[in-house]
Amino acid sequence: MSMQQKSLREKDREYVWHPLTQHKTSGEMMPLARAQGALLFDPKDKAYIDGISSWYTAVYGHCHPEIIGAVRAQMETLDQVVFSGFTHRPAVNLAEKLLSVLPGQMSKVFYSDNGSTATEIGIKMALQYHFNRGEKRPVLLAFEEGFHGDTFGAMSVSGLSVYNGPFEDFFLEVKRLPVPTEENKAEVLNTARTLLAENKLAGFIYEPLVQGAAGMRIYSVSGLDELLGLMKEQGVICIADEVMTGFGKTGELFASSRLRNQPDIICLSKALTAGMVPMAVTACTEKIYQAFYHDEIGKGLFHGHTYTANPLACVAARRALELLQSTEIQEGIRRIRTGNELFAAEMRSHPKVTNVRTLGVIFALDLKIEMERYGDLRDKMYQGFMERGVFLRPLGKTIYTLPPYVTTIDQLEAIYQSIREVVDTI
Amino acid sequence: MSMQQKSLREKDREYVWHPLTQHKTSGEMMPLARAQGALLFDPKDKAYIDGISSWYTAVYGHCHPEIIGAVRAQMETLDQVVFSGFTHRPAVNLAEKLLSVLPGQMSKVFYSDNGSTATEIGIKMALQYHFNRGEKRPVLLAFEEGFHGDTFGAMSVSGLSVYNGPFEDFFLEVKRLPVPTEENKAEVLNTARTLLAENKLAGFIYEPLVQGAAGMRIYSVSGLDELLGLMKEQGVICIADEVMTGFGKTGELFASSRLRNQPDIICLSKALTAGMVPMAVTACTEKIYQAFYHDEIGKGLFHGHTYTANPLACVAARRALELLQSTEIQEGIRRIRTGNELFAAEMRSHPKVTNVRTLGVIFALDLKIEMERYGDLRDKMYQGFMERGVFLRPLGKTIYTLPPYVTTIDQLEAIYQSIREVVDTI
Repeated sequence: MSMQQKSLREKDREYVWHPLTQHKTSGEMMPLARAQGALLFDPKDKAYIDGISSWYTAVYGHCHPEIIGAVRAQMETLDQVVFSGFTHRPAVNLAEKLLSVLPGQMSKVFYSDNGSTATEIGIKMALQYHFNRGEKRPVLLAFEEGFHGDTFGAMSVSGLSVYNGPFEDFFLEVKRLPVPTEENKAEVLNTARTLLAENKLAGFIYEPLVQGAAGMRIYSVSGLDELLGLMKEQGVICIADEVMTGFGKTGELFASSRLRNQPDIICLSKALTAGMVPMAVTACTEKIYQAFYHDEIGKGLFHGHTYTANPLACVAARRALELLQSTEIQEGIRRIRTGNELFAAEMRSHPKVTNVRTLGVIFALDLKIEMERYGDLRDKMYQGFMERGVFLRPLGKTIYTLPPYVTTIDQLEAIYQSIREVVDTI
Repeated sequence: MSMQQKSLREKDREYVWHPLTQHKTSGEMMPLARAQGALLFDPKDKAYIDGISSWYTAVYGHCHPEIIGAVRAQMETLDQVVFSGFTHRPAVNLAEKLLSVLPGQMSKVFYSDNGSTATEIGIKMALQYHFNRGEKRPVLLAFEEGFHGDTFGAMSVSGLSVYNGPFEDFFLEVKRLPVPTEENKAEVLNTARTLLAENKLAGFIYEPLVQGAAGMRIYSVSGLDELLGLMKEQGVICIADEVMTGFGKTGELFASSRLRNQPDIICLSKALTAGMVPMAVTACTEKIYQAFYHDEIGKGLFHGHTYTANPLACVAARRALELLQSTEIQEGIRRIRTGNELFAAEMRSHPKVTNVRTLGVIFALDLKIEMERYGDLRDKMYQGFMERGVFLRPLGKTIYTLPPYVTTIDQLEAIYQSIREVVDTI
């Protein structure tokens, strides 16, 4: 019987290997029991404001009754079927709706399960696009410190590779550029021209406007726009990784909406399914699709995952898009955006912070701290936020928030107050 | 208004790019409206027996009320949270239960979203295991015609690469062996010894007992066992890809249970979540986990997907394991196994077929047909089955079935009868 008395924490330590975790130094994982709206609750029902929307997924609030209702009805009707040879209304309706709101000239939706597979599919589309046309273009272009996922193809294009040492020998060939800023723009564009002259670039993958995992680094809209213009002139397939930026986070429905030059391929996941179940999408233009549409079977894209277009995920995503366009959610986005701008103006004069930046519901700042002093800074800040009932995940010396669109004024103020206090106590 | 009159089929063709499909030659996708138990229903409510359990997922029958009940309760409580820093009861309970039924000495569960990510994680564990110990072992070993997924790492180890031409230049270094049979066993083991002598093999990935995508190719148990013995002697990490074979399909709970030599890593997906939502698991022994458990953060496995350990998927999987061990389901497995064996005995004397084989609920046969005559054979057979109300997906000249464990005697007989008739009309 004593075996059954083990706590959830103890069992977790005994049985579970967590993602992105060095278990020896991480300490115990904290159990969560329930979630509702912008709040997470521990087993004693202490509430924490979900300041990062559970990795940018639950932007409409946790356990949203309308998402639940849609999933419940679907799972009683059609759970999962083979999506090669068959189709179903949830997948078709979602594709139709998505294509009506995506920027650019997106024409087809290819479903998969997570951000890594969405970018792997984007990369495969770009490489095979040229292969099918008889052109040898074996190199990809990506930004330094971009993040696109953890499978081998996705890792290859991710520049944030501090922990990718064991796998670097096995990566695709990738050239890198710094993100354009107002200062380096001319230089970045020149480097791009030099790379383009070799005529080996198959595709260019980028997180539009803001690099999430790099610490919410917001970069030059016009610089990206000019870069995309150069790429498109040379037939380089442009892959917008909107896994983080999509679905309202930048204030627009999609970050690419802010640009003149539109991508050939868009990758989506995270908020796509409102934090309910995993799913991803790789959307593309008719130009891409047509390069695979051929009497020769082998010119098709022979990629698939078993749960592709899972009907439960499709109805969650379809309902989520309606929520995104609702007055309530659009007002929520404006409320957070305004709050972020006011808080940014306040923090810009704070002596201990620098690089205060905001874009849509995203707010971030960096601490003025020397690299050597990092130590356990991140863990101390994390604990400081949790003690104040706010869940935030600092990245190095960067503090950022990206709260659910249903976050109330009071909850938003509680997030800001926790940041003020944690910054002051560091 | 006429835009809204488009049929579901037309909209599908206009908006959706299906997996593993050359749309120019494939014809239209057929809509499905609902599913229940072993049956799929089209929009006119015509029923089709799901002869392959929707790609080996819905083995307990579609829309199982107990799976639905578990998912419904979960989504009203806790939908999705960050699984780094936090944990939750659904993930811990599933890990505890899984570890109690998995063969070998599995000690930890690492969650992800699909079979491809499960094998990518297995591959990364094997490569980094040696890297963390300061050993340079950059090569993987896999079987010819194995299939392990469609992301770059998973594609690299998949030998079934007829359509991987555009990507082959970007693969990890992989050595290949034919699967051992009673005839070639000594030769395969000798080749393995030669490869092992170079001391470069990090890991060996294999589908235990039966290669699914290769056409349900059943191979030598003792041959695999001896091969695993050789690998383990030399410290090569053995990765059992039980994505297809797991959860009762071979008659045992897991295919590896039939072997003396147990893997270091086991990959699971498909039936894991009973055909409800996507999820995958990479389980490993304490030896693997300990090689990553270190004061140095970078020795951890920095892999993660946003929806890792999705609580809905965890409760579906936990409930599915209880179903798997229930008397009803175990009787279903025996019923299908017995049916398959009787049908195999009958078909072995059929003049038009060869290589009749069966293992657990898996039944397969090959048509005696020259390669040149393939043509549209596969499509004709597919149509022949659908016309008879049975959903099967022939692979080349191979016909196979792997029906849900809830398939009734009458439904099973209908599958067999459709195979008899289709074979006779070819």
